Formats: sequence, structure tokens, C-alpha cells
Amino acid sequence: MAEIYMDNAAGTRLLPEVFDTMLPYFTTEYGNPSSIHPKGSAPHEALEKAREQVASLIGADAGEIFFTSCGSESNNTALKGCAWANEKKGRHIVVSAIEHQSVLHAAKSLSRLGWEVTTVGADSRGFVNPDAVAESIRNDTVLVSVIQASNEIGVIEPVKEIAHMVKQKGVFFHTDAVQTAGTIPVNVDELGVDMLSLAANAFYGPKGAAALYVRKGVRTYSLIDGGIQERGRRAGTENVPAIAGMGKAAEIAIQDMQNRISSTTKLRDRLMKGLETSIPKLTVNGDREKRIPGNVHISVEAVEGESMLFSLAAKGIFAASGSSCADKALKSSHILDAIGLDHALANASVLFSLGFENTEADVDKVIEVLPPLIERLRSMSPLWSA
Amino acid sequence: MAEIYMDNAAGTRLLPEVFDTMLPYFTTEYGNPSSIHPKGSAPHEALEKAREQVASLIGADAGEIFFTSCGSESNNTALKGCAWANEKKGRHIVVSAIEHQSVLHAAKSLSRLGWEVTTVGADSRGFVNPDAVAESIRNDTVLVSVIQASNEIGVIEPVKEIAHMVKQKGVFFHTDAVQTAGTIPVNVDELGVDMLSLAANAFYGPKGAAALYVRKGVRTYSLIDGGIQERGRRAGTENVPAIAGMGKAAEIAIQDMQNRISSTTKLRDRLMKGLETSIPKLTVNGDREKRIPGNVHISVEAVEGESMLFSLAAKGIFAASGSSCADKALKSSHILDAIGLDHALANASVLFSLGFENTEADVDKVIEVLPPLIERLRSMSPLWSA
Repeated sequence: MAEIYMDNAAGTRLLPEVFDTMLPYFTTEYGNPSSIHPKGSAPHEALEKAREQVASLIGADAGEIFFTSCGSESNNTALKGCAWANEKKGRHIVVSAIEHQSVLHAAKSLSRLGWEVTTVGADSRGFVNPDAVAESIRNDTVLVSVIQASNEIGVIEPVKEIAHMVKQKGVFFHTDAVQTAGTIPVNVDELGVDMLSLAANAFYGPKGAAALYVRKGVRTYSLIDGGIQERGRRAGTENVPAIAGMGKAAEIAIQDMQNRISSTTKLRDRLMKGLETSIPKLTVNGDREKRIPGNVHISVEAVEGESMLFSLAAKGIFAASGSSCADKALKSSHILDAIGLDHALANASVLFSLGFENTEADVDKVIEVLPPLIERLRSMSPLWSA
Repeated sequence: MAEIYMDNAAGTRLLPEVFDTMLPYFTTEYGNPSSIHPKGSAPHEALEKAREQVASLIGADAGEIFFTSCGSESNNTALKGCAWANEKKGRHIVVSAIEHQSVLHAAKSLSRLGWEVTTVGADSRGFVNPDAVAESIRNDTVLVSVIQASNEIGVIEPVKEIAHMVKQKGVFFHTDAVQTAGTIPVNVDELGVDMLSLAANAFYGPKGAAALYVRKGVRTYSLIDGGIQERGRRAGTENVPAIAGMGKAAEIAIQDMQNRISSTTKLRDRLMKGLETSIPKLTVNGDREKRIPGNVHISVEAVEGESMLFSLAAKGIFAASGSSCADKALKSSHILDAIGLDHALANASVLFSLGFENTEADVDKVIEVLPPLIERLRSMSPLWSA
């Protein structure tokens, strides 16, 4: 059975040319980049090349890129590092209700350590209101963090407008761009952000490499203290192969971005329309236009999300019920709660996250397979009365 | 020119069979281990297999192993996570003066956040005194952290005795075993530790994978908050290939440990004696017997450590001046300071860290090459008057 992978929000396939870039750092170039003998040279150069490549992807200077091990680490470093370094100003931070768990839980940890956290909601289409963010800012606010696009509903937030209002009040602004950087054009100056998180595995790079952009002059403490790696901002022996791979993946993403966007957007719209036409009582969650190219998040009345996923998987179609970071633990999504989705509908949702490697045939297969599955599941559902 | 790699303390060469274990997770098995569809299955199983393998290496239960991205992250998680989770008991921790930077700087960060830190010294042979540790414990002490063997001088500390005294006082005990786990027998129950850090790259596994052992029942908070990965103790998409590689490297380490120890110890003693015989005014730092198999740390009067390193590298011999985490930044080592080594001698030191892949011919080459290099360097040194 052919496999149709539509769970790119949980992680993309590693590109073979990215793997080729990583390979020498597993074999001959195994040295520590901090070593001053020649075995450290190639690994060190690989790090600095990747830093340039990742900087290019988001319009930053290489000196503003700090490598981490995952998007969650980047988010934790941004929130905690900025809060700790600037606590003389105050102990208040602001986040949105549709942040990734790593932002929400980092904020929760800070609140346990004595910080106050204000959470700003989102509207039914998934948008955070810039005015609401501005109103939440107090004299003792140090940092605001609003995600650029949710990993569940994929809605692209007005980060530029929010950043502008936040910066006018002299407060630091961070955005979690894990789902956007490498997928759509992201430029730190255009957005006006102070910090931005991105992760390689979201744009066909490896697991184990991510980065935090920190604008020159922004004071943060490190989360992982120790050696002098990453100019003292992130200790620990660098994961050279993964970082080199992240750099290559960034380079390819820059080249292919427009093609990827146009083909994936077409597939997304085809899938949305196909499903809406063929399945009654199906809704697409989140704004239809301002969303990342591959995201199709639907709720299907009177059907359990998990039942749909298992039925799809049995046909070789791999999708998700929401964030992979919560899949196995939580039955309901804080994001769908935040946009006011009815609880029953929230539990009746499926996320198809398409990538540039998906084809029209993949999409048509889903449109062919899902309606009869839904019909069957509904016929067994006590909630369904059509 | 043949390369002789004697910088294994900074990182070991990845074994080809370990790389083979990692390979499928770069190619076909790219799924997210948290995904509930079949693409998540193999990655998930790889994590759990690695958890068993790493647990076996240190005599732990698989449920007590939490994967991280590097030894520094493990150390930071141990110190900060334990301090934060137990602050109701008090805000005092104890570390030794010969800890790795990641422990010392994590302690420093805690002190910035309101904790008090007591640092216990070491004697001239490099030993931390268990009585001194016991005396440093107060009613509000939450945690003691003493390294099992320094990554510079390689002296094996009386961790069992220290842990025993610490536990008797009802205080948590952590050891940084990055240089020992996978190299010499390490058993968490025999040592009596509550937490223990280890890293794959120290035993021929990949960069990007490490672990923290946390004894059942020990309360800690996570450093990286977010999703439900690692049962809520460490968020972020798991670096599946690197973790699978760590498991395989642990399995091989268990099998080969006695052979590796006996061959490396012989080489170490051969190198020590050879250099002592052929170079006047050369001292071996740290206790000669209780040290990890591959560690030869020497000071050579009136010669700059860096000059020796560069001269050796020119002959294809790769060694270090101390910790790779500080190589490029610090001129003097806090470890050599702590054991009371004269400042001039501290700057005149070289660390050869041998691995099981080194040969007698490698060692003899160093014994042949180094004496004339030293003679030449001393002939140019204003400090030398022989």
C-alpha cells in the first residue's frame, strides 16, 4: 500500500541532499568544533556556514543566530532567558492562548518562579487581536510572545502589527515561527521582532537542530549554562551534523520557497473544497486565506478525531488530530478551546498538513477515501442523526 | 600524514555500527515518535529500545532515563530542575570546585535567582573530600552535585562515599558521569546517586544525544517545558536517530568495556611513563591510579600548552589543553586552579585523552615526537633555564 504522508506539521521528511551534507560529520569529521587542532576546523566551519544559511532564511545577521536542539528549547530560552535577564524591569509577561505548549508551559514555569503571566485570547477565526495585546501591557511587562502560525490551525497571525505595538511600549517581542520559517517568507526586520524561534525539521531538515534568533542588543540569559559554545548563549557540544543539515535545508528552502508555496497552496485548497463538497457537516477551522500553505484543519460532526485517524491510517493516509506534542496525552486541544470551538467539534477534528512532496493524486485519494469512512463512522455514532 | 586522535574527552569517533543503527531514522523512518499513525511507530520503538539500552549501561530502570540533547543539558536539568522542584525545603546547593562548567554555571544561574551555593574544594591529587562535602550541608540544602571524573584531569572521585554521606542527611545527590558512563562500570544503585548525567559522544555515540538518570520518586522540574515527550520531563521532538545511536553505543560499550579498559589503561601508563622518562620537569596532574583509563594530563615546565598543541597538531597528533568547552575562551583552567597547580604550570599543560582505537604505535609516536618539540620550545622560552 502506498503511503500518503500528510503530517508535516509533526515533522517533515529529511531531504536526501540535506542528509548528504550531514554525512561527513558522522564519518571523518567527528571532531569537536571547539577543539583548536585541525579535527575541530571542518566542524567549526560547518557551524558557521549553517549560521549564515539560517540567518539568510530570516533576514538576520549570522551573529544573531543561536543554535539549539529543538523548537521547544528555542521557545523556552526566549521566554525564560529574557525574563531572567530583565527582571529588574518587572516580572510580567504576555502570551497568547494559541501558543505552542512549549511557550505556554515555559510561561507557567515562570509563574511558579514568581512571574505574572497574562494570556490574550483569539477570535473564532484564530486571530490574536493586536489591540488586545497592547492593552495587556503594563509598566512591569518585560516580554510578549505571540506565535506566527499555530501548529494546529495554521492561521498566520498579524505578528508585524503586534510587534509594532509592543515595541512602541518598550517591551521585548518574541515569535514562535517554527511552523512558518522555511515555509513562507519570514524576515525579522520586516516583522520587527526581537526574538524568533525556528526548527529544521519543519522545513525538511533533521531532528535535533533548531535556532533562536536574538536581535543584537537584546539581553537574555541562557537556559543551558556552561561552556563558551554559541558565544556563551547555549552551552554543550554542538550537534554538528544536524546543524549543518539545518543550514542546507534553509538554503534549499530559500530557493524552492515560491514553488513549494504555490503547489502546496493549490493542494490545500483542492483538499478543503473536495472535502467540503463531499462530506456534510464538515467545517474548516481557522481563517481560510491567512493560513500556512499546507494546513487543512477540519471538524466533522459526530465523528471522533481518533477514529478518523485510525481509519485513514488503515488506508495508508497519515494525518494528525492536532499537535504531535500532545497527541498521546490530551483529548482536547487548548488551541481549539481558545478559538471557541464547541468541545464535541474539537474532538471531531483532523489535521492534514501537506508538504511540497504531496501530489494531486494524494489529495484526490483522501477526497475519495474519507467520505465513505465518515459515513461508516457516523452510522455507528450515537451522536449522528442525519 | 597519519592522524593520531587523542582528544576523546572532547568527543569520540562515531562507530560505524552505531551510525548504521541511526541510518533508517534519517531515511524511511522520519516520522514523529508522538504520532499515532504507523509512521510514528518505528521511531517510538527506537526511543524505547534505546532507553532500555542506556538504562542497562548504568543499572537503572528504563523509566528512570530521560533523553536530552547533551551532557550540559543533563547537568542543567539536574541542578535547576531539582532546585526549583524542592525550593520549599530550602535554597542552598553544594557543588565541588572541579565540576564541569555546565554544573558550575548552572549553580551560578541559580545563585542569580536567589539560591545560595557552597563550593567544596579538592586536594592536590584532585580528590574531593567526602567529609568536607558532608560538613557543607545545612538544613536548607536541597542538592549536592559532585562529578564522577573531571573531563580534564580524569581523577575518579569517591562518589559512593560522598553520596552515602549526603543521603544520610536527606539531601539529593547528583553526579556528572559524562566522562565515566560508558567508559568504566557505573551503577546507580552501587553509587547510591539520585541523578546522573551521561552523554553518547563520550562513548562512541553521536553528538546530540545524552541522558539524565532520575531515580524513581525524585522530584524535578523540567528545563525545557512543553509537550508530553519524555513523560513530561523534557519537551521537544525527540532526536530519534541520535537517541537510537546512543542506545546502540551503550550496548556496545557494555560488551566491550573490559577490553577497552585494559587496552586503554596500558596505553595510558605507557604514555605517562614514556613522557616522564624522556622529558625533564614534566609532571602528571591528578592521582595516578584512580583516574579514567585514557587520561594523561601533563604539565611541562616553561612551555606554553598551546604551543605544544600546535606543534603536535603539525605532526598529526591531536590533543587538548583542557576542556573543549573552554579551549578557545579561557587561558587558565578552574580545575587546575582548584587542585592548587601553580599558574605557570597550569598554562603549561596538555591533555592526551586516549580511546580504545588508539594503538601502541600511536603512543610511541607521541613519545618519539614530543621530547624534541619540547626541547625546541624551551630553547625559545625566556622561562627555561636548564
